Amino acid sequence: MSKYKFIRQSAYESNMQLPKLNLVFSTFGNVSVVDRIEKVFAIKPSGLPYEKLSPDNMVICDFEGNVVEGDLRPSSDTKTHAVLYKHWEHIGAVVHTHSKHATAWAQAQRDIPIFGTTHADYLTTDIPCAPPMDDAKIVGNYEYETGFQILDHFKNNNLKYEEVEMVLVGNHAPFTWGKTGEKAVFNSALLEYVAELATLTEQINPKAPRLKDSLINKHWERKHGANSYYGQC
Amino acid sequence: MSKYKFIRQSAYESNMQLPKLNLVFSTFGNVSVVDRIEKVFAIKPSGLPYEKLSPDNMVICDFEGNVVEGDLRPSSDTKTHAVLYKHWEHIGAVVHTHSKHATAWAQAQRDIPIFGTTHADYLTTDIPCAPPMDDAKIVGNYEYETGFQILDHFKNNNLKYEEVEMVLVGNHAPFTWGKTGEKAVFNSALLEYVAELATLTEQINPKAPRLKDSLINKHWERKHGANSYYGQC
Amino acid sequence: MSKYKFIRQSAYESNMQLPKLNLVFSTFGNVSVVDRIEKVFAIKPSGLPYEKLSPDNMVICDFEGNVVEGDLRPSSDTKTHAVLYKHWEHIGAVVHTHSKHATAWAQAQRDIPIFGTTHADYLTTDIPCAPPMDDAKIVGNYEYETGFQILDHFKNNNLKYEEVEMVLVGNHAPFTWGKTGEKAVFNSALLEYVAELATLTEQINPKAPRLKDSLINKHWERKHGANSYYGQC
Amino acid sequence: MSKYKFIRQSAYESNMQLPKLNLVFSTFGNVSVVDRIEKVFAIKPSGLPYEKLSPDNMVICDFEGNVVEGDLRPSSDTKTHAVLYKHWEHIGAVVHTHSKHATAWAQAQRDIPIFGTTHADYLTTDIPCAPPMDDAKIVGNYEYETGFQILDHFKNNNLKYEEVEMVLVGNHAPFTWGKTGEKAVFNSALLEYVAELATLTEQINPKAPRLKDSLINKHWERKHGANSYYGQC
Repeated sequence: MSKYKFIRQSAYESNMQLPKLNLVFSTFGNVSVVDRIEKVFAIKPSGLPYEKLSPDNMVICDFEGNVVEGDLRPSSDTKTHAVLYKHWEHIGAVVHTHSKHATAWAQAQRDIPIFGTTHADYLTTDIPCAPPMDDAKIVGNYEYETGFQILDHFKNNNLKYEEVEMVLVGNHAPFTWGKTGEKAVFNSALLEYVAELATLTEQINPKAPRLKDSLINKHWERKHGANSYYGQC
Repeated sequence: MSKYKFIRQSAYESNMQLPKLNLVFSTFGNVSVVDRIEKVFAIKPSGLPYEKLSPDNMVICDFEGNVVEGDLRPSSDTKTHAVLYKHWEHIGAVVHTHSKHATAWAQAQRDIPIFGTTHADYLTTDIPCAPPMDDAKIVGNYEYETGFQILDHFKNNNLKYEEVEMVLVGNHAPFTWGKTGEKAVFNSALLEYVAELATLTEQINPKAPRLKDSLINKHWERKHGANSYYGQC
Repeated sequence: MSKYKFIRQSAYESNMQLPKLNLVFSTFGNVSVVDRIEKVFAIKPSGLPYEKLSPDNMVICDFEGNVVEGDLRPSSDTKTHAVLYKHWEHIGAVVHTHSKHATAWAQAQRDIPIFGTTHADYLTTDIPCAPPMDDAKIVGNYEYETGFQILDHFKNNNLKYEEVEMVLVGNHAPFTWGKTGEKAVFNSALLEYVAELATLTEQINPKAPRLKDSLINKHWERKHGANSYYGQC
Repeated sequence: MSKYKFIRQSAYESNMQLPKLNLVFSTFGNVSVVDRIEKVFAIKPSGLPYEKLSPDNMVICDFEGNVVEGDLRPSSDTKTHAVLYKHWEHIGAVVHTHSKHATAWAQAQRDIPIFGTTHADYLTTDIPCAPPMDDAKIVGNYEYETGFQILDHFKNNNLKYEEVEMVLVGNHAPFTWGKTGEKAVFNSALLEYVAELATLTEQINPKAPRLKDSLINKHWERKHGANSYYGQC
């Protein structure tokens, strides 16, 4: 038995959620799940249709993006995942999709404004959109640099990856993460829903105001604060 | 047998309608059903996925929002439901969702204009949007104050809850109610449909006029007036 | 056996197509099918859910809208159907829906411009939107007058009902018709598709031009002209 | 056994993908697959519902659009397919649909701007929209001229059909092609997705910039270049 059995199974199950939640077109999406002790992660093989996935054909890679175990090529976005795992120690899974509404905001190169409590129940800031990379980085080690583009954007804007578990990469598409594959996939679905709500909100009222700070704090606190009272104990 | 068997069953069935009618994302929605004699209502437990609901795990609460029977925490919106039941004596059920188009109007902080007969078959006014609360109320007993924000908005605008069975809470999302769980859920579905129609109508004609009073009255009368001739006797 | 067996069956089957084609919300839609020899038509009973329909509970009405056979109340729109059958001798079925995109154009009170060949394959003009009625007519015999509002709009605009098998009633919703129930329902589905295409077209290019006359004529001719070459012989 | 067994089967399977991928309304779509040795192609019969298709009722036509084998009339768009096969030697299949978002761009008579990497993974240019034809051509051999309108637009704009496997025909709808039926159908689905993303992108940011050349080249290279690293070997 592979010692990576758990992350293979978890990555497989999380990848299979993407088409079920209507978050992918064709094969444009991938989930990885990390093993922090072994310092490796399991990721979807590149270009394979979801119906051909199995725990066994997930590819095991290290934090430089090198294949450790597996016969297939890993997702072409593997190095982006690797950079995030290496530098953000508390994430357990990463998801990349080209989901419709989130990708449209990425192409529009805009942060998604925090317009309502649906958004505020999960994060207290606009959803950040990292700018497209400099040409030098694009020509170079592109997917590797995509990871650093995300890291730099968070650093430059004082964002904490533990609190803001999602980003849009300008001209490209979203990445999300979380403690587990399940949570990271949930974040992708939430992002897609909030993105669509924001598009509709601006259509209905182009001058719709952002949420007040008091309301942002209240919704965050009731779900995630010390005295949270959402969900079961 | 619990003496709350009927409202447990009814609240369960009504909650299960929400995902079926495509009115909820994740667990963002809840229905409660009241027992006017016992002065309690049955409501969805907080944060539980719909597939895990049963009549038995509905939570029974009184009109202050205190749990009377049940092992799980009730919905975090319970106090809003409680206030509505306490002050509006003729409602039998309350629904809260974050359905897409209605929530977008709430985030846009606009009343939904009465543009057509689909809307006028059910209510004679624009669908009201209550403004976001003052900071003092938000910091305080938030969900409790949300109930009063709705009550006050109806009072200040001479709206009757028996005739206008729905409201948008600014920056947040819709609440609807009705004589029964079934009717309250129908109102949520109707609101979502009318909200989408209104968004499209303004897209096609930004100067689309509201319905004429004569037409508003005619459609209301034929469905709800003394000589109504819609539906079976 | 009822001598109306054929139109009962046909009206039933056509009504059941509406939810299947995603053309109705709740019970907001009805189809009728005429018997020209008996001068009666079969129509959906008012307010009944689609899953409770059967050939037997269709209601038989004459061209004044009076019930000839049936225990249930006919659709509240029955008199509109009656007027159309009485005055337009070559129609075999009438459909009324509140389908999303067509209703939005009706609420916007605009004709749907002929933007492309999808539209031109079926009609050579914009899809007409009749204006809302005068107050006197609304207060009076409303559904009866709705029929005349449609007749008058066609007459005043030199439209032929044999060629333009659909209309929007301003502030209300669409009506379509055809030789058979099947064709009339197809026209409702086509109208909904063309309406959505037109909304998107104007979103992408607010100055999108109408189709050239040469192209309108060509597409009409190839499908419906003397030398048509679309479909099988 | 027909010597056209392979293309009959392939054209049948590819046509059946269109409703499954939600790319057609009613019968508005057709796929053909070519046999380069016999210089014929198999195409959908005109106006037949998808559920009545079989490999046996595909129609075999030559590169002038004449029927070589088959009892039914071929698609009314057959001559357009024929022209493309005759002049573009390396295509194996052609698809025509009236899919919603692509058709709206065709009606808007605009090229679809290259806004993101979803688009750039497949082609390095905007998706071209050929202008509507001159009246003389429309009145004449319309579908035949539609083929030349596409050829001319590619020639005049220095587009290579091997690299840009799709086109919008102004006022009409999209055509796509590819080495195989499967690839040509994929291109129709991709076009529809990219078209919707572009509509949303401009809604969110009317001044959204096109993708930088460096990013266009990178995404193309990683998927199609000499050192491509997308998919399995």
